[in-house]
Amino acid sequence: MKDKVKVAIWGFGAMGSGIAKVLLRKQGVDIVGVCDLAPQKVGKSIYELLEVAQEERPQVLVSKDIEEVLQTKPHVCILATDSFTIKAFPKIKLVLEHGINVVSTAEEMSYPKAQQPELAAELDKIAKENGVTVLGTGINPGMMMDLLAICLSGCMTDVEHVVCKRVNSLSPFGPAVMEEQGVGLSLEEFEKGKKEGTLAGHVGFAESVGMISEAIGLGVDNFHQNMEPIVTSVDRRSPYGFAKAGNVAGVNMTGFGDRKGECVIEMIHPQQIEPELEGTHTGDYITLKGSPEVNMSVKPEVDGGIGTIAMCVNMIPHVINSEPGLKTMIDLPVPRAIMDDFRNHIK
Amino acid sequence: MKDKVKVAIWGFGAMGSGIAKVLLRKQGVDIVGVCDLAPQKVGKSIYELLEVAQEERPQVLVSKDIEEVLQTKPHVCILATDSFTIKAFPKIKLVLEHGINVVSTAEEMSYPKAQQPELAAELDKIAKENGVTVLGTGINPGMMMDLLAICLSGCMTDVEHVVCKRVNSLSPFGPAVMEEQGVGLSLEEFEKGKKEGTLAGHVGFAESVGMISEAIGLGVDNFHQNMEPIVTSVDRRSPYGFAKAGNVAGVNMTGFGDRKGECVIEMIHPQQIEPELEGTHTGDYITLKGSPEVNMSVKPEVDGGIGTIAMCVNMIPHVINSEPGLKTMIDLPVPRAIMDDFRNHIK
Repeated sequence: MKDKVKVAIWGFGAMGSGIAKVLLRKQGVDIVGVCDLAPQKVGKSIYELLEVAQEERPQVLVSKDIEEVLQTKPHVCILATDSFTIKAFPKIKLVLEHGINVVSTAEEMSYPKAQQPELAAELDKIAKENGVTVLGTGINPGMMMDLLAICLSGCMTDVEHVVCKRVNSLSPFGPAVMEEQGVGLSLEEFEKGKKEGTLAGHVGFAESVGMISEAIGLGVDNFHQNMEPIVTSVDRRSPYGFAKAGNVAGVNMTGFGDRKGECVIEMIHPQQIEPELEGTHTGDYITLKGSPEVNMSVKPEVDGGIGTIAMCVNMIPHVINSEPGLKTMIDLPVPRAIMDDFRNHIK
Repeated sequence: MKDKVKVAIWGFGAMGSGIAKVLLRKQGVDIVGVCDLAPQKVGKSIYELLEVAQEERPQVLVSKDIEEVLQTKPHVCILATDSFTIKAFPKIKLVLEHGINVVSTAEEMSYPKAQQPELAAELDKIAKENGVTVLGTGINPGMMMDLLAICLSGCMTDVEHVVCKRVNSLSPFGPAVMEEQGVGLSLEEFEKGKKEGTLAGHVGFAESVGMISEAIGLGVDNFHQNMEPIVTSVDRRSPYGFAKAGNVAGVNMTGFGDRKGECVIEMIHPQQIEPELEGTHTGDYITLKGSPEVNMSVKPEVDGGIGTIAMCVNMIPHVINSEPGLKTMIDLPVPRAIMDDFRNHIK
């Protein structure tokens, strides 16, 4: 019998701890180390923090020292700390230089060539020099507005135009997301926040558009995006958010990939609390114009939190099996849930 | 600049000639040889048969001699002659032994382990010995009722039950399909044809179920399927079919993958002429129960003819790039339409 797959997690917030909880339910895989800097977590047992019974598993205490964590010689380190390549870069570099594969949750790492071509080339080089692989993934970017559209295009002989639309509810999210997405602001406050860069909106359109364009060969030569307020005409209330009629219930992000001045890829991603109150139905929608035309919907939308956790967990075997280098979702076999022993999926 | 991708086609029927037509529209790829035994095609120019202008392209005459065709040293031979592994096997073997990659349209070749594990092992061995790859693909099996479900499961942490439903219309098809699918028969005639094995139904459920079970690790230990008549309550007429009220308008194929006596994968595939006349809407539907539940629909269904042609064309670069051996759709990167030069997709 092969050794169990050993996983380390760097960043034990909502994503990192969610990934840990799923891994603890899976067969043939062990968490061997966790790194996080939060004083209330350091030195604590992950089983205590996750409220999961330790059972036969080895003890794992949260360490603030990544070097110590990497000494456990994991097959993969999941890096769940950042959204931007430039911030994730030194951490990824450090892990790769220990000869350890990386799965990153950073949105920009799903296709780092889009905005950081030099760092992407550097990561590819470092990964190859150390004989390991680095992949960025998640639900979006990584799946619902890019890989799934690419996969569906496989049954088409010709693709002329791609529209990916993800309509989701912010109602399940906490106060941080309410603030980042401008929920409850007046229009004036929203415009001020947009100008000053305090509203996050969605990170990942440049990456999704780049990935689709490369995969299908659409030749996109220009990318641009917008962030507009979704103004509610009725009062809307969610557990952590409230938008009074006339104020902002969320943001509508749109992104466009043009080829020679003509839009060929369109991304539409409105996020708001209580969308049903004004008749908006959540879902993931893909329309591929061409031959044959393909119209897909997934209703309701795939939950962003569980979805990202699942993608990171499910790509672990593909990353271990991959040839060395920087990879994206279009380079590896299709993602899949893993219901049996992880070792069955290791070559 | 790299050399163009060179493709040979063995079997110049609806699929083979459809694939040729698409390839002739694509950049960076040449058809270098075609083999077919039909006397009305042998010796003819493929451009004449396809009614496509030859332009700058090299002349290609249909040959009845596959050895002659393989002398053109294609990178890939597309084999579009059979539905069953046992019939495709000697042809695939011959091509592999010439050191040439194979894409097969045979439904059973999409996952030959399901029904021909010994032939599958043999093909894997031959392919590896000759340093080349063999893949079976198509719209179904190959995509709509297997790979797409597997891909969607990638955003799930747990999958308990899989339902793939493909509802399509037989109206566009010709007399051969009408006969194979029992369109217009009385119930008695249908039951007789079913018993005597003259009704084809759908080939591929065992393969789709096997592929899903392996990919997700669902542990299916038993497969069974049914073919039932779709009896119409109104007269239905299509260009090549007619079913009077009370007679058979098509077949409903169902397939089941069980684990320890419990069904975990369900396949539902009704095919009939003029389904709308009784309120049936065509489409591809996938429901994945688990966490989170995923409900997908593609409406109308992806056309089976164009879809299979597209899958075969689009997988050519992945097959050329692959490590040697027998591969299935779950081993290779996601399929994708190719709108730019084929050489951009060759490693």
